[in-house]
Amino acid sequence: MTNTQQSPSNTSNDNLRYERGLARLREIDGEGGVKVVESLADIAPDFARLVIEFPFGDIYSRPGLDLRSREIAVVAALTAMGNAAPQLKVHIQGALNVGVTRTEIVETIMQMAVYAGFPAALNGLTAAREVFARAEVATRATATVTATA
Amino acid sequence: MTNTQQSPSNTSNDNLRYERGLARLREIDGEGGVKVVESLADIAPDFARLVIEFPFGDIYSRPGLDLRSREIAVVAALTAMGNAAPQLKVHIQGALNVGVTRTEIVETIMQMAVYAGFPAALNGLTAAREVFARAEVATRATATVTATA
Amino acid sequence: MTNTQQSPSNTSNDNLRYERGLARLREIDGEGGVKVVESLADIAPDFARLVIEFPFGDIYSRPGLDLRSREIAVVAALTAMGNAAPQLKVHIQGALNVGVTRTEIVETIMQMAVYAGFPAALNGLTAAREVFARAEVATRATATVTATA
Amino acid sequence: MTNTQQSPSNTSNDNLRYERGLARLREIDGEGGVKVVESLADIAPDFARLVIEFPFGDIYSRPGLDLRSREIAVVAALTAMGNAAPQLKVHIQGALNVGVTRTEIVETIMQMAVYAGFPAALNGLTAAREVFARAEVATRATATVTATA
Amino acid sequence: MTNTQQSPSNTSNDNLRYERGLARLREIDGEGGVKVVESLADIAPDFARLVIEFPFGDIYSRPGLDLRSREIAVVAALTAMGNAAPQLKVHIQGALNVGVTRTEIVETIMQMAVYAGFPAALNGLTAAREVFARAEVATRATATVTATA
Amino acid sequence: MTNTQQSPSNTSNDNLRYERGLARLREIDGEGGVKVVESLADIAPDFARLVIEFPFGDIYSRPGLDLRSREIAVVAALTAMGNAAPQLKVHIQGALNVGVTRTEIVETIMQMAVYAGFPAALNGLTAAREVFARAEVATRATATVTATA
Repeated sequence: MTNTQQSPSNTSNDNLRYERGLARLREIDGEGGVKVVESLADIAPDFARLVIEFPFGDIYSRPGLDLRSREIAVVAALTAMGNAAPQLKVHIQGALNVGVTRTEIVETIMQMAVYAGFPAALNGLTAAREVFARAEVATRATATVTATA
Repeated sequence: MTNTQQSPSNTSNDNLRYERGLARLREIDGEGGVKVVESLADIAPDFARLVIEFPFGDIYSRPGLDLRSREIAVVAALTAMGNAAPQLKVHIQGALNVGVTRTEIVETIMQMAVYAGFPAALNGLTAAREVFARAEVATRATATVTATA
Repeated sequence: MTNTQQSPSNTSNDNLRYERGLARLREIDGEGGVKVVESLADIAPDFARLVIEFPFGDIYSRPGLDLRSREIAVVAALTAMGNAAPQLKVHIQGALNVGVTRTEIVETIMQMAVYAGFPAALNGLTAAREVFARAEVATRATATVTATA
Repeated sequence: MTNTQQSPSNTSNDNLRYERGLARLREIDGEGGVKVVESLADIAPDFARLVIEFPFGDIYSRPGLDLRSREIAVVAALTAMGNAAPQLKVHIQGALNVGVTRTEIVETIMQMAVYAGFPAALNGLTAAREVFARAEVATRATATVTATA
Repeated sequence: MTNTQQSPSNTSNDNLRYERGLARLREIDGEGGVKVVESLADIAPDFARLVIEFPFGDIYSRPGLDLRSREIAVVAALTAMGNAAPQLKVHIQGALNVGVTRTEIVETIMQMAVYAGFPAALNGLTAAREVFARAEVATRATATVTATA
Repeated sequence: MTNTQQSPSNTSNDNLRYERGLARLREIDGEGGVKVVESLADIAPDFARLVIEFPFGDIYSRPGLDLRSREIAVVAALTAMGNAAPQLKVHIQGALNVGVTRTEIVETIMQMAVYAGFPAALNGLTAAREVFARAEVATRATATVTATA
């Protein structure tokens, strides 16, 4: 068993997946996503690498479904599951980052009332309110910097 | 309490919601969706009406998110929840009906491996295989009819 | 560790819980419930005993909530969870057995559309239809036997 | 598609559902429920209206199941699902408001240990403790006001 | 119905289950577990007794599966369910208490990414980080006491 | 966007992960597991590759947790989630394949009654009974072949 128990090596082609995944992570989640991954460094550094390689390097890098649709799908799923608020917030921001409008995000969450119940939709809207408010603060901050520059 | 316990009346404007909902249901789910609703007639006829009025008359009739995105959202959510196979199949067919491609459906389901685990994605693909196969049989049947006409 | 690892003994007072639980199980689920428990004899006989002792001997035997309300609560919860169809059917029958009406069962399930989504409610109604149909066959069979006696 | 994409109109009979729903919401959830709905005004005002119309105007206004049983059903379901703590608290208060006793609420939650596991029941009891404590503070405040009046 | 509605008596053999369960609870969860149970005294004292009797007196006291495997199973299940963070933390500590290593706990949680999705695994790792940090503070405190003794 | 939308290439190091994953899949799930993966060839061939690479090539190939514990963790999680019966059966067989005893599997599933409720445990035992029965038929078939050889 010792042979198969070796830690997965981390050479050439995995580096491609890692680089591709990291670029995708930055595109979708911005520096917030990178920070989430970095926060794993102390407890599960290999998992930080796997998060970049599989979801972002393998799945989000696939053709066949545009990024806007991918983010709508994730916002819908995490709202419906209702047990992953931190990740839902990251992906509401991710949806905004790839061009999904606030209205589209709110409609996606509202629709989940039909499939997962009103509490799931209400808690999804609470998450969206928080992300939208943060985005406004950031925008105002940038505007101030620009105005004073 | 008797006064508030009256059955909801079913007059003018509810008829608008009902008509609008029924049209939407036909557009998305075709005659299959209508049959699901009709099957409720024996056990919960009021629920048949509510299914048409709220999900289809109220939610699916809203502007702000196109039908393709709505169906991608539902396929994602029901795959992730993993406990509503019959409704997932109806909505995989619904997604096809409103122009989502097979590739897009498969990608949406595959992506759920990241958010709800591989078993959820595998069972979602099993549902898709069944719906796609049924669609092919229907297409061949139509082709035969056309060819022999 | 050997001392604490002994199989739980099955003496005096556990027998009280067991007897009390078995009576409660018969009262709620009838012979159907007894059969479910008996079906565990081959694979997990101790679990059969625990099912009678804890849920029925400990919980259902408590004062403070009448049996009708307990069965409404279970039908609601299992409909909402949506991943335990066999047990939902047993408890829809159990609800009928302790005097919950068909209308009350259907209303309880319909209400879950609000809290767990329409697919959960639709699948709950499918379970109810099956149990109600079986009950009618049983009633007709009894009627025939009585008529021919 | 433009025609069906119109926002749902809000005329005569929907007003009946809205009025009926709002009355029901006040009866069950008191001013707390109204505040939850009002908090949606900024992010999803239409959803605020839908929450009043469908769950309260359509479902809770139906005959066939008394309000006490409806609230027991909701407390059971939300305890079992375990992913909607804010709504569970609102409905524990709602149950108290329509005459369910503390003992009945505690028994309903305890019973969920059987159907959804001990963690779900423990977290449900934590929610109940918080609501009961708040109710006592409110009662004492009223008592003080009355005593000093 | 009055007869069956008597509160479960609490005599001889239940005392055995209770004593056995309490010993098991202390072995696995330490004083933290005892405190959780004690916190139920105000709202549901009977449930405190049932938590000790059934999970710990009946289930954890069974032979056939060693305690390390039992705690790995619980950490896996609660991570996957994703809706019981307080109990997950108690059992990560419990796993440490019965000799599961930090590495084994982290691997168990990481593996849940495959079966319940990356958000569930990420939130499980967050819980583990918190428990591990607390354990280090406790260890340093003990070390200081020992060093100064 | 065209550049990042290229399908993941499948060269050198991914082949290592694939080979390592395939070996692991055979070790745990035997030919049954290989068949599950092969059944994806028609609908989602890339997903078949990803199933081998990530769960088996990346996760199951990691040191730090022995295969027996990994399979106990999966049986626990899938029993608790209760919405993935086909995968639960595959992993009950997988647990047997890597040396977990029937008793240990039954105890793991029974324990889930505490964390996810009795219905989840009962449905897990139903899955186990089916897998155990199949294993016995296979053993008898082998015995007959050996006896007649």
